[in-house]
Amino acid sequence: MERIKCTIAYDGSGFAGFQVQPDHRTVQGMLEKVLAKMHKGEMIRIQASGRTDTGVHAVGQVIHFDTPLTIPERNWKQAINTLLPDDVWITTVEKVPDTFHARYSVKQKEYHYIVLNREDPDVFRRNYALHFPKSLDMKAIQAACKHLEGAHDFTTFSSAKSSVKGSKVRTLFQASCMKKEDDIEFVFRGSGFLYNMVRIMVSALLDVGIGKRNPEDIPALLAAKERGQLGKTISPNGLYLWKVSYNEPEEEKLSVD
Amino acid sequence: MERIKCTIAYDGSGFAGFQVQPDHRTVQGMLEKVLAKMHKGEMIRIQASGRTDTGVHAVGQVIHFDTPLTIPERNWKQAINTLLPDDVWITTVEKVPDTFHARYSVKQKEYHYIVLNREDPDVFRRNYALHFPKSLDMKAIQAACKHLEGAHDFTTFSSAKSSVKGSKVRTLFQASCMKKEDDIEFVFRGSGFLYNMVRIMVSALLDVGIGKRNPEDIPALLAAKERGQLGKTISPNGLYLWKVSYNEPEEEKLSVD
Repeated sequence: MERIKCTIAYDGSGFAGFQVQPDHRTVQGMLEKVLAKMHKGEMIRIQASGRTDTGVHAVGQVIHFDTPLTIPERNWKQAINTLLPDDVWITTVEKVPDTFHARYSVKQKEYHYIVLNREDPDVFRRNYALHFPKSLDMKAIQAACKHLEGAHDFTTFSSAKSSVKGSKVRTLFQASCMKKEDDIEFVFRGSGFLYNMVRIMVSALLDVGIGKRNPEDIPALLAAKERGQLGKTISPNGLYLWKVSYNEPEEEKLSVD
Repeated sequence: MERIKCTIAYDGSGFAGFQVQPDHRTVQGMLEKVLAKMHKGEMIRIQASGRTDTGVHAVGQVIHFDTPLTIPERNWKQAINTLLPDDVWITTVEKVPDTFHARYSVKQKEYHYIVLNREDPDVFRRNYALHFPKSLDMKAIQAACKHLEGAHDFTTFSSAKSSVKGSKVRTLFQASCMKKEDDIEFVFRGSGFLYNMVRIMVSALLDVGIGKRNPEDIPALLAAKERGQLGKTISPNGLYLWKVSYNEPEEEKLSVD
């Protein structure tokens, strides 16, 4: 048996999320169907770095699976892509040792969230960015981002439906926000993320941007450890699982107090 | 009665083209349904600058219609957009004199065609650009574009199914091609376009780009006046009706021999 690691991009718009569900089109379901075809009907279970919700996209999701096939590494990519529909694409394939696990070996993950900040929406990007027409104070958002960086209990910023039973402490190595023309791009890089955490953080940061909250409110919100302190989870359309890293995070980039 | 002119953007992916057809989701059908709602069920027929095919997008399609409603000009845009689905968007609304006609008053039209020229496709742009992985000789394509500019009989570059009965002479004020990172963007600006003309021109220009034809073949192809001289009509996914102008073309931009 050989263990294969794949990096995958997908457009989340047409999927009921990553995780396999009966009678739903899911990314995992699609990949397992293709792998079964390649393995003469044999079920090949894949492991991913984590799930993504309905409508959430991936530029660099990572999965692994074990296979009895002896296909040369360079041929795997085309073999799988040929069978996949055009809203999923394998960008890289590598053979990895048995000790590699797409989920348990993760060292850090990076999510991006894209906001189209102008009056008119863009019909071509309705599934790929959140349209937010109100004007935003970028300095205030950036100051609020700084308060999110570091190791914190993110209970306030995670879904009350979260199934995590252990600690809700996570470390954000980077929380930042850049404006390029009409686009605002948030970047979150951390040791791990709780359920809906990025979407709830962006929702709170946009509240800061319109002056509904102050950047200085963030520490108190974190301390409250109460999801009810914040407004609704924002749309999945602007959210991208950007990168999953299996090497130690670059500590020098850690801008914590 | 007042005549209203609207500029419209739409994502062609979810429409069976512009023109109304029974039992199909079309842009015209959608707009007329919304206008009927605003007019208490009364049918309001719209006139467009021209049709677009299934999958073809618009950034600046223009329509007009006549209405008995006396809504202030500034309120029309929101009134219509509120009722439209999120893959159509009215960008501007103006009251115009009765002498204006969205189709008959057209002075020039501009189409863009976008090609993603890299090895891997982009899952997020599968409906918005043609994926073309082969390497392209930009200089040759640009030289071929020059041969298309000017007044020519474009029979070779139009669908044999074209319903045009009169002259197939059209004037291209601009035919050009620019590379920006992995994107190649074609721009065609002319007095008018025959059915499938842009998609057939791009198909021939890509043949030039891969060396299957020479730029110098274009004049002979035009002279042949025979659709059969060229390969298949290329995908609609990269095609955008970019702009429709009702003023005289800027003659100084006319780079004809």
